[in-house]
Amino acid sequence: MRIVRYRASDGRVWGGLVEGDVVVPVAEEAGGFMADAVRDLIAAGGSFVPAGAAVPLADVSLLSPLANPQKIICIGLNYADHIRETGLETPSKVLAFVKTAQTLAGPVDDIVVAAGSTGQLDWEAELAVVIGAPARNVSPEEAGAHVFGYTVADDVSARDAQFADGQWFRGKNFDGFCPLGPWIVTADEIADPHALAISARVNGETVQDSSTSEMIFRIPEIISYLSQYMTLNPGDVIATGTPHGVGMGRNPQLWLKDGDVVECEVEGVGVLRNRVRVK
Amino acid sequence: MRIVRYRASDGRVWGGLVEGDVVVPVAEEAGGFMADAVRDLIAAGGSFVPAGAAVPLADVSLLSPLANPQKIICIGLNYADHIRETGLETPSKVLAFVKTAQTLAGPVDDIVVAAGSTGQLDWEAELAVVIGAPARNVSPEEAGAHVFGYTVADDVSARDAQFADGQWFRGKNFDGFCPLGPWIVTADEIADPHALAISARVNGETVQDSSTSEMIFRIPEIISYLSQYMTLNPGDVIATGTPHGVGMGRNPQLWLKDGDVVECEVEGVGVLRNRVRVK
Repeated sequence: MRIVRYRASDGRVWGGLVEGDVVVPVAEEAGGFMADAVRDLIAAGGSFVPAGAAVPLADVSLLSPLANPQKIICIGLNYADHIRETGLETPSKVLAFVKTAQTLAGPVDDIVVAAGSTGQLDWEAELAVVIGAPARNVSPEEAGAHVFGYTVADDVSARDAQFADGQWFRGKNFDGFCPLGPWIVTADEIADPHALAISARVNGETVQDSSTSEMIFRIPEIISYLSQYMTLNPGDVIATGTPHGVGMGRNPQLWLKDGDVVECEVEGVGVLRNRVRVK
Repeated sequence: MRIVRYRASDGRVWGGLVEGDVVVPVAEEAGGFMADAVRDLIAAGGSFVPAGAAVPLADVSLLSPLANPQKIICIGLNYADHIRETGLETPSKVLAFVKTAQTLAGPVDDIVVAAGSTGQLDWEAELAVVIGAPARNVSPEEAGAHVFGYTVADDVSARDAQFADGQWFRGKNFDGFCPLGPWIVTADEIADPHALAISARVNGETVQDSSTSEMIFRIPEIISYLSQYMTLNPGDVIATGTPHGVGMGRNPQLWLKDGDVVECEVEGVGVLRNRVRVK
């Protein structure tokens, strides 16, 4: 299944299933703060039953497939060639940091940055895992059963803020710094998440071009490791790291500017396409 | 007002008001994942209207006053005497990191740590701000209007994990590492949040004893600064940093062990009292 959140032409927000060129509504999102139709469906056990008539995909606006997960855990420095370009050391263990839900943006939303807030705006294409059943103290062998599906994340980063603070929270958590989507592909449809082409393009030019086979810590190990410390909850997102080719690693360095279009793609999962707006 | 979340004797969870030695129910917490009666009341504009008969405070179990805020932002190195004991540098700007909601624990809950997960368990008493109206790009002068109230946080830390990673996320985000409460005191009841005694005790012995007047960056400045980058949402918590006297700064260093009782207190706000359990 390909699971989306979308805004229908009448303005109502739904979780739904994409089938070819139509979307089938499954559950309308409740009003109220921190609502998230897809997260709640996953938490309820992942039963996605049609609740209305299919509508053309072209008639709806795709939103971030999750609106308010409890946490978006990002794995830092998880591709060897990306580590080389940053000049940082290879972690001996999984290195985690986090984005919170005000960073989420849809698969075709603009990335809107306040003028003067950063001079070093960068992209990071990532394969993201969506957690299904809660995971606490699970082994790598058990981890697979806790994967609901996969999506694509752009771990947008303000490098000046990231490195000025030392702690990466601020530079990674500007509003809208986590475009996600375009949908969640359920785990049964991805035979091997460690054999997928992963790439990014800026204004059509390929800037990242690698494979998820290059991950240092693989998904079962990441889930098992994190679950020793914290419960991974339904709808939680784990962005598994980015390969080489980010702007800070290029010579000369390349920072995103107003009007640039960034595309992040993972084979068999999907493509994000976001325009940068500096206002 | 003093606002609590509590479990009644019949198991139902409510948001309520403490009045003397009784609690007045205001809103029952909806079932479902990521529910939070108090967060939703704050988001709805902070109207806390009694919805039932008062019950003795002694007959209910106090829970974390917020269950699922979008984010719990912590300010690092915000008291000069704490910076000296860590040996770290004084930040030139507000230094933020974050806890996510699986860390929350109630004001008298045990802090349960898996055996072997950390050998350097530490406490940090903090005054925590709860955001009311959303704050985006507000000035220090405007920031006060976005403060809903205050509570007490213990920013529990696994120092070995915190410093092994460099990024503080893992060492700060074990399940249960954010005891919060015992209630939210609304802003109108705190004349000056920068003139409150703040202290911690371990097994009855005072280990932290300072004043919120010692903060380097004060609350209006913190809110204004963060809001330049990210929207602060209703129910978001900002833990404003801890004074000197944490376990890592003592000579010899003092780490919490099974059975220890940690109390964190802020004058005019309240006391947390949590027992450590290593299992």
